[in-house]
Amino acid sequence: MDGSISACPDPGALARAVGASMFERDRASRSLGMRLIDIDPGGATMEMAVREDMLNGHGTCQGGFIFALADSAFAFACNSYNRNTVASGCAIDYLAPAFVGERLTAHAREVSRAGRTGVYDITVSNQKGAKIAVFRGRSYEIKGAVTDTSDQA
Amino acid sequence: MDGSISACPDPGALARAVGASMFERDRASRSLGMRLIDIDPGGATMEMAVREDMLNGHGTCQGGFIFALADSAFAFACNSYNRNTVASGCAIDYLAPAFVGERLTAHAREVSRAGRTGVYDITVSNQKGAKIAVFRGRSYEIKGAVTDTSDQA
Amino acid sequence: MDGSISACPDPGALARAVGASMFERDRASRSLGMRLIDIDPGGATMEMAVREDMLNGHGTCQGGFIFALADSAFAFACNSYNRNTVASGCAIDYLAPAFVGERLTAHAREVSRAGRTGVYDITVSNQKGAKIAVFRGRSYEIKGAVTDTSDQA
Amino acid sequence: MDGSISACPDPGALARAVGASMFERDRASRSLGMRLIDIDPGGATMEMAVREDMLNGHGTCQGGFIFALADSAFAFACNSYNRNTVASGCAIDYLAPAFVGERLTAHAREVSRAGRTGVYDITVSNQKGAKIAVFRGRSYEIKGAVTDTSDQA
Repeated sequence: MDGSISACPDPGALARAVGASMFERDRASRSLGMRLIDIDPGGATMEMAVREDMLNGHGTCQGGFIFALADSAFAFACNSYNRNTVASGCAIDYLAPAFVGERLTAHAREVSRAGRTGVYDITVSNQKGAKIAVFRGRSYEIKGAVTDTSDQA
Repeated sequence: MDGSISACPDPGALARAVGASMFERDRASRSLGMRLIDIDPGGATMEMAVREDMLNGHGTCQGGFIFALADSAFAFACNSYNRNTVASGCAIDYLAPAFVGERLTAHAREVSRAGRTGVYDITVSNQKGAKIAVFRGRSYEIKGAVTDTSDQA
Repeated sequence: MDGSISACPDPGALARAVGASMFERDRASRSLGMRLIDIDPGGATMEMAVREDMLNGHGTCQGGFIFALADSAFAFACNSYNRNTVASGCAIDYLAPAFVGERLTAHAREVSRAGRTGVYDITVSNQKGAKIAVFRGRSYEIKGAVTDTSDQA
Repeated sequence: MDGSISACPDPGALARAVGASMFERDRASRSLGMRLIDIDPGGATMEMAVREDMLNGHGTCQGGFIFALADSAFAFACNSYNRNTVASGCAIDYLAPAFVGERLTAHAREVSRAGRTGVYDITVSNQKGAKIAVFRGRSYEIKGAVTDTSDQA
């Protein structure tokens, strides 16, 4: 009765512990200024501001950065059960341009999870609620846990 | 006798001028250590070495970096005609993991180009020739040229 | 004051007129036993029962028939504004098998519509509400109307 | 010395035996007038003529029939090793319209096959060699064989 996550496996608390652990190690997401706003079992929300150095020659946010935000939200969502999970593939459709200074939010939710595979939908919107992109990811669970929960007394 | 690209519109020379101009402005690709190996009308080849800071918790290259390499090769290929072109969407399938120190090559080729839209296939392989991922991108031509070719006397 | 659709362009009534007109001409959907349950601006719901002749060698519904159902719902949804619209591409992920006798429902809803292009999400479920497949379609508006509304007095 | 396929497992002969067995059972493909032109380990080629009853309201072949042709070629290719294999998902991009009377050819080739999963690329062209669509399918191997090879003495 130590109050550790393993002894008291509240799925929401577990998801938050996973999120904190992943985010700490995720240099790429942090260097892009991403923030993990929320994580729960099967879902995650991340934010990123569009910076000058993310613009393409057309003055709009390069698609790769929008992808990166959606991809990170996908990764947090599909790993939220503390089972190591990787992407097997994904697809993105760009709907509207994003401009410098805009704050983008990626909201990931689980569509399906069966056996070791899952499908997740991620929507990227700007601060006005306009949809910027939709992303669909397929996940595959591999061996191991994301974070060790045994000593979190 | 000005030797400018516009006066002598060799498509291959134009593609190379576009590639040089885009690469110079493309901080994201350069910060990931990408190199533009080749560019011709409708095609491009880029390389990137897998660095320590690209690894995920499983010790393999995070999918987002493999995507970024393929996405860059796609961008160079679809802009190679010196017409401003953006991605309208894309999809990636991861086939095999990539490990630190490996040298990845993304080879982009045009599948179709009609009106203002195009489809491009990108294959990412490692230095042994093993396929790491396949990527398919759809492009959309917008207004303007990538690089000004009039004063390159 | 003739009560025609053009004179009284209620979007819901227009969508239903389009649906009736399309369905009457759509031999393929009818030969598969599909029914158009509902149509409104940007959305459509279709049903299909899994028949013996839709089974593959594994005794489950062949993916192509699940695709066909989703694809039809997509077509009705993106044509519901009475502007001729075709698919430019789509993707499907199969989530669970469907068995003979099951009643499948495809629910299509608009994700985005801007200029001449749109993105639609279609979910296929069985009669128990279990998700069988998710489908994402991209549409492109061409010339002309789906149905002539001028003489529907 | 029975000359059966299992005793003399020539991969090409096995693929052809699988193809013949699948095609015989495949009412859907036959009712659309498809023909299996060629099958070998990891690859298949199918043909279909565009019929009047495949046209949409715009007078061009409905995308679902082009999908069906590509999907069949995919199914034959990924089952060609005589291991029961189903689609886990796929995506199609339509490149050019197909007209009545045209003869469409779908050529499927294996991109990757590892463990129980595979990726296949299918190109659909018309009789002039113009590309009509590109299709990418992901396969998943389940239990069992496509055809019993033990008694084919």
